[in-house]
Amino acid sequence: MAQNAHAARPGEQTPAVEDDHKGPKGVIKVPQRLLMGPGPANAYPRVLAAQSLPLLGHMHPPFFAIMDEIQEGLRYLFQTKSPYVLLVSGTGHAGMEAAIANLLEPGETIVVGNNGIWGTRVADMAGRFRGNVVELKRDAGQTFSLDEIKAAVQEHKPAVLFLCQGESSTGTHQNLAGVGDLCREHGVLLIVDTVCSLGAVPIFADAWKIDCIYSGSQKVLSAPPGAAPLMFGQRALDKLKGRKTKPATYNLDLNLIGDYWGWFGKRSYHHTGMVSMWYAMREALEIAREEGLEQLWARHNAMHKRLWDGLKSMGLEPFVEKQADRLISVNTIKVPEGVDWAAVVKNAMDTFNVEIAGGLGPTAGKCWRVGVMGANAHPAPVDLVISSFQDGLARQKRSL
Amino acid sequence: MAQNAHAARPGEQTPAVEDDHKGPKGVIKVPQRLLMGPGPANAYPRVLAAQSLPLLGHMHPPFFAIMDEIQEGLRYLFQTKSPYVLLVSGTGHAGMEAAIANLLEPGETIVVGNNGIWGTRVADMAGRFRGNVVELKRDAGQTFSLDEIKAAVQEHKPAVLFLCQGESSTGTHQNLAGVGDLCREHGVLLIVDTVCSLGAVPIFADAWKIDCIYSGSQKVLSAPPGAAPLMFGQRALDKLKGRKTKPATYNLDLNLIGDYWGWFGKRSYHHTGMVSMWYAMREALEIAREEGLEQLWARHNAMHKRLWDGLKSMGLEPFVEKQADRLISVNTIKVPEGVDWAAVVKNAMDTFNVEIAGGLGPTAGKCWRVGVMGANAHPAPVDLVISSFQDGLARQKRSL
Repeated sequence: MAQNAHAARPGEQTPAVEDDHKGPKGVIKVPQRLLMGPGPANAYPRVLAAQSLPLLGHMHPPFFAIMDEIQEGLRYLFQTKSPYVLLVSGTGHAGMEAAIANLLEPGETIVVGNNGIWGTRVADMAGRFRGNVVELKRDAGQTFSLDEIKAAVQEHKPAVLFLCQGESSTGTHQNLAGVGDLCREHGVLLIVDTVCSLGAVPIFADAWKIDCIYSGSQKVLSAPPGAAPLMFGQRALDKLKGRKTKPATYNLDLNLIGDYWGWFGKRSYHHTGMVSMWYAMREALEIAREEGLEQLWARHNAMHKRLWDGLKSMGLEPFVEKQADRLISVNTIKVPEGVDWAAVVKNAMDTFNVEIAGGLGPTAGKCWRVGVMGANAHPAPVDLVISSFQDGLARQKRSL
Repeated sequence: MAQNAHAARPGEQTPAVEDDHKGPKGVIKVPQRLLMGPGPANAYPRVLAAQSLPLLGHMHPPFFAIMDEIQEGLRYLFQTKSPYVLLVSGTGHAGMEAAIANLLEPGETIVVGNNGIWGTRVADMAGRFRGNVVELKRDAGQTFSLDEIKAAVQEHKPAVLFLCQGESSTGTHQNLAGVGDLCREHGVLLIVDTVCSLGAVPIFADAWKIDCIYSGSQKVLSAPPGAAPLMFGQRALDKLKGRKTKPATYNLDLNLIGDYWGWFGKRSYHHTGMVSMWYAMREALEIAREEGLEQLWARHNAMHKRLWDGLKSMGLEPFVEKQADRLISVNTIKVPEGVDWAAVVKNAMDTFNVEIAGGLGPTAGKCWRVGVMGANAHPAPVDLVISSFQDGLARQKRSL
């Protein structure tokens, strides 16, 4: 093409453009699937539709108004009056990293409750940020007692304690009773991961004295993956403001991102807000609010029971030994001896268009994982999962 | 509600749920705007529509096929045969941080071309990652000559050189002729920011010997904000693989994310892919390919000229002195003495529903910034911007 047609700078070569188009041309094609694994869950149609609305600028007043609505919705979900709530741009991992990067300084001690992949990852992150990492370990399928948490806090005198409320790699639900009080008493900041539990089971950030909670968009909220709800209580904010060092990550520095979300009374540009994703979250949060938290919790509990009534009737058992440790949103199911778990997963997809998942990390090969979350926590999807197990196991009996 | 209706754990208090719904209830409302600032630009309707397609799981083969298509599209945009391309989950800032975090080790020297806000931010990031930061500074509106880049490389012997091709805070276009050769000669890795230039002006990753390029989704590609296209050449990959320390950020560790994108021959879970956003990017990349890079570059250049024909006819002048330094995608326009720049911006929005922007960082108050990018690089939007300047300036003449 003529050199003056484009804006290459003097001296820059412009060889012929190469194109070797192998992939399918034309408009994207996406099959329909029922997503009953640990997430993403299917999104609400209204949430997906919001993403096709025209973009606004990330510094426009009408967009700020939508951010205000999101913050209101987050306060409701977290049950907090804290002004310090926002969406981290990214998935739950970005929320996790934002929490650790901003609340832990190099050389400080963090006690990490590690009973699955999320604790392992937090320990890895905290080490990269040059924290002194103490892992409180439990086997997959177990949770921590208040007594052992207390002993660890007393022994290690950490700056930060991390616990995962809903451990989706193992299917456990961490009891948080008394942990907030314990942390206040010892001057410890409490970070709780609720990526796959927020909205499915009760949590009260203020009443339970939790300093930082983060979550994900693609589980109970049934929005697409890409936004991590996050809250800081006043003690977390004070820690952030009083840091001796800058957080290692500029991209997730909550001093700067908080400034964009109006935490400090104005709105300063940090990075471009994820406009379509924020629209989706505004809708997802409003849908949760229209239903109401108590109803949301009760629906998830009822669907969890419905799932297990079906699974137990065919002899399947929970991977998590104790009833009180079992998570209701991501359910782990023991693989019976001699059964090919992967064949059951494959059959569910091939025959029913249903995703169920195998284990992850410490549970790989030992269990299936079934998510009953948000838009999918209803009788029809749950019953389809039960049918897919019945069919998958029956096929193996025939072939065993 | 009855305690057994939900899944609170023994001992956990469940006070009454509080709701203080102040924001508007019901479905989200979004006004229509023409986004002619530095970004986001308006998205293509086909791109927005893709985001309302049903979610797939992030580990499903049909989703991997879409990721393959995205990678093909990225190779085309970057003009590279490198296998090491992917979308970073986040905006251009996440791309920037991924580049710096993965290619710079603590204690290594980075020379940062700093002639605007992006250089300033890279310097900040590199410092947080404990790099030895050398800033090569130029006033806003100027670019770097090959000679001064060469002198800096010879003097400081950096591990990494950072340059911004399209500096959107100042409106400059960095000439890259000879820089790749220089870097190879001195064993320096070259990182180039193309957030607001990719697709508008020529760049050839392989022919120009660039080791790492990152960009943004919401500019010339006209997708929503939230994905950062990124490429590593073989030398960048070798550096990543040979690191003595882990990157400080787990969330953006390209060893792990690359593994999800199939860089090393398999697909391992790192974090949940941003499903809807990836759909949007697949469409945006396909649209760019359907038009063709040469046509895309020529269209942007023609619309830049059309904009300036109109602006110059009313006596406005470029903020950037030298023609050869001017960026065509984000145009900076000098604010004439005595003119209230903010009133022109406000009038454009109030009267025309058009966003134009003021300066940023070193150019705040000194210029306007007009983006002519992607879906908006067409005569009608450009002419509307010209009209909005005519009207805004005429109103001031009346009132001055």
